[in-house]
Amino acid sequence: MNNYNNKIAITTGDYNGIGAEITVKALNELNLPSDEIVIISNPKLLKGLKNDYEIISLPADNVEYGKLSADSGEFCFQALKTACEISPRAIVTAPVSKEALHLAGHKFNGQTEVLEYFLAHNGEKAEMLFISDFFDVFLLTRHCALKSITISENMIIDKIIRLNRFYQENTKFALCSLNPHAGEDGILGDEEIEIIIPAVKKLRDMGIDITNPLPSDTLFVDAVQNSIKGQKAPYDCYIAMYHDQGLIPVKSAAPYTTVNTTIGLPILRTSPSHGTAFNIAGQNIADARSMVSAIKTAYKLTKHQAPASL
Amino acid sequence: MNNYNNKIAITTGDYNGIGAEITVKALNELNLPSDEIVIISNPKLLKGLKNDYEIISLPADNVEYGKLSADSGEFCFQALKTACEISPRAIVTAPVSKEALHLAGHKFNGQTEVLEYFLAHNGEKAEMLFISDFFDVFLLTRHCALKSITISENMIIDKIIRLNRFYQENTKFALCSLNPHAGEDGILGDEEIEIIIPAVKKLRDMGIDITNPLPSDTLFVDAVQNSIKGQKAPYDCYIAMYHDQGLIPVKSAAPYTTVNTTIGLPILRTSPSHGTAFNIAGQNIADARSMVSAIKTAYKLTKHQAPASL
Repeated sequence: MNNYNNKIAITTGDYNGIGAEITVKALNELNLPSDEIVIISNPKLLKGLKNDYEIISLPADNVEYGKLSADSGEFCFQALKTACEISPRAIVTAPVSKEALHLAGHKFNGQTEVLEYFLAHNGEKAEMLFISDFFDVFLLTRHCALKSITISENMIIDKIIRLNRFYQENTKFALCSLNPHAGEDGILGDEEIEIIIPAVKKLRDMGIDITNPLPSDTLFVDAVQNSIKGQKAPYDCYIAMYHDQGLIPVKSAAPYTTVNTTIGLPILRTSPSHGTAFNIAGQNIADARSMVSAIKTAYKLTKHQAPASL
Repeated sequence: MNNYNNKIAITTGDYNGIGAEITVKALNELNLPSDEIVIISNPKLLKGLKNDYEIISLPADNVEYGKLSADSGEFCFQALKTACEISPRAIVTAPVSKEALHLAGHKFNGQTEVLEYFLAHNGEKAEMLFISDFFDVFLLTRHCALKSITISENMIIDKIIRLNRFYQENTKFALCSLNPHAGEDGILGDEEIEIIIPAVKKLRDMGIDITNPLPSDTLFVDAVQNSIKGQKAPYDCYIAMYHDQGLIPVKSAAPYTTVNTTIGLPILRTSPSHGTAFNIAGQNIADARSMVSAIKTAYKLTKHQAPASL
C-alpha cells in the first residue's frame, strides 16, 4: 500500500446526495497539488474533476439521486473504513445519510461514530468541534434524542480537558447551561448546581479559562452579532450541552464556513456542516462553500505547509 | 377606581435591577401622551421621568442595586397583581427575578405564570410569543428544566390553533423538530413520528399553513441570515419545542427588538426579552431599546391608534 500520511483523504458520502458534486466543485476551486489528495469514491461519480487525483475506487451501483438506499449506505461505510485503513494525514468526509447506513446494517449514529469505531484503538474518544470563521462550538453530547441527553461532572471535565489540549494555549471557553436561564438557582433544573458548576471549579483549578454555565439564549447574542460585522466572537470556543443548542447559533452565523471537525482520534477529520441534500441532488446546484472550508480546515489543523492556492 | 381600559399599564420589575431605569428611558424617548400610560411602581424609582404619567405607588423599601431580595420579589408580585386588577388595555412588564419572587413566597416560574394566575378566569392559557422586527418565535414549552420537556399531540394542536387565531390570516408557520436532525426517521428520537407529524397533519386539515418538523439548526439559518440584510424571514412565525431552541436564534438576530409577548389571556402583555441585569443596575448604562420595542408592540397589537410619536 502507498504511504498516505501526507495526503488528505476525501470520501464523497452518499452517492444519491450532493457529496460527489461538492467534492468536484471544491477541488476544482481549490486546485490543490495532485499528490496531496486521495479520493475514496468511484470515478463515474467524479465527472468534471480537473486535476489528476488518485482515486481509490469502490463499487457504486444503482445511483439514483434523492433515493435512500442500502447500497449507498454500504458504499459510505466502506469508504470510511478505507479512509481509516490507509492512515492519511486527515480525512474530509462529504455527508452521508444515517438512515442509509442503518439500511446497510451499520447501526451508527453518524460518521463520527464510524470513525471512532475504526480509529480508537487505545481508548481515544471522538469529539465534535464545529469551527467557523467567527467562533467555534464544541458539543458535550452529540447525536441523541433530546430526552436521552445526560451529563455528568466527570464527563464534562474529561471532554473539556481534551478540548483544551487540542487548542493548546490561551483559549477562552464559554460554557452553555443545560437549562434555560442557567437553571435560575435550581428553579429550572438542578444540573447547573449539582454537576456543571463543580466541574467548572475543577477545570479552573487546572488553569482552564472557562465561564460559569451561562444562559445560551443570551450567551450567543454577541457571538452572532459580531459575525454580522465580520468580527471575532468574545470567546474562542462555545461549549454546548447538546446538538441544537450549539449548532443553531454557529450555523446561523456562518452557514457556509462552518466545518464539522472530529478531534480526539489519531486522525483529524473535517466535514461540511450540512447534510446529503437529497432534494437537490444531481442538479448541479449544490453550494460547495462548506466543503471548501472543510478541506481548508483539514489542511490548517494538520499544520501542513498549505499549498499556495489555499 | 379609574377606568384604565385605554391605558397601557407598565410595571417596573425588580427594583434592584434595571427595570425602572429602562422604563424611564423608554418613556422619555417615546414621549407618549400622559393619559395613555399608567405606571405601577414607586415615584422614588422613577426619577428623571419627563412626562406627568399617573403612578400607582407600591412600597419599595431597601432598594439595593444588584441584590436579590424578598422585598423586591413582593413588590414585583404586587405590581403584577395590581396591573391585572385595573384591567388596562395592555400590560408592559420590566424584568423580574424569579428567585426574588420565590424568596417572597410566590412560587411562579415567571411573570407569564403570575399573569395567567390572575387573568385566566375562564380556562384561558398564557402562551409565549417572541416578536422581533424580522421573525416571530412561539414556544410550545416554556420555563422548565430540559429534562422536564414533554409534548403531546393534543398540546401541540391546541396551542397552534390558538396561535393561529392570534395571527388571524395568511401566516406561514415553521415548526422545529424536538430532536436533532428531526429525529432522522426515529433513529434520534421517536417524538417526530409518534407525536409531531400526526399533529401537523391535523393542523393542515384545518387549513393552517405549517411545515413538517424541521431540524432547528438548519431551519433558522435563512431567518438569521435574512435579518443581517434587514429582510424578513422565509416564515412569519417559527414554533420552537422549548425555550433555548427558539430564543437563541431570535435574540441573536434581533437582540434589541425582540419582545416577549403573552397571548391567550384576556389582556395582552409585552416585556423586553432580557433579564434584570443586576450586574449593571443603578449605573444608568442599561440599554432601553428592548423596553421601547415592548411598549411599541403593546400599542400595535392592541390596535389602538398609536400616538404620533410612535
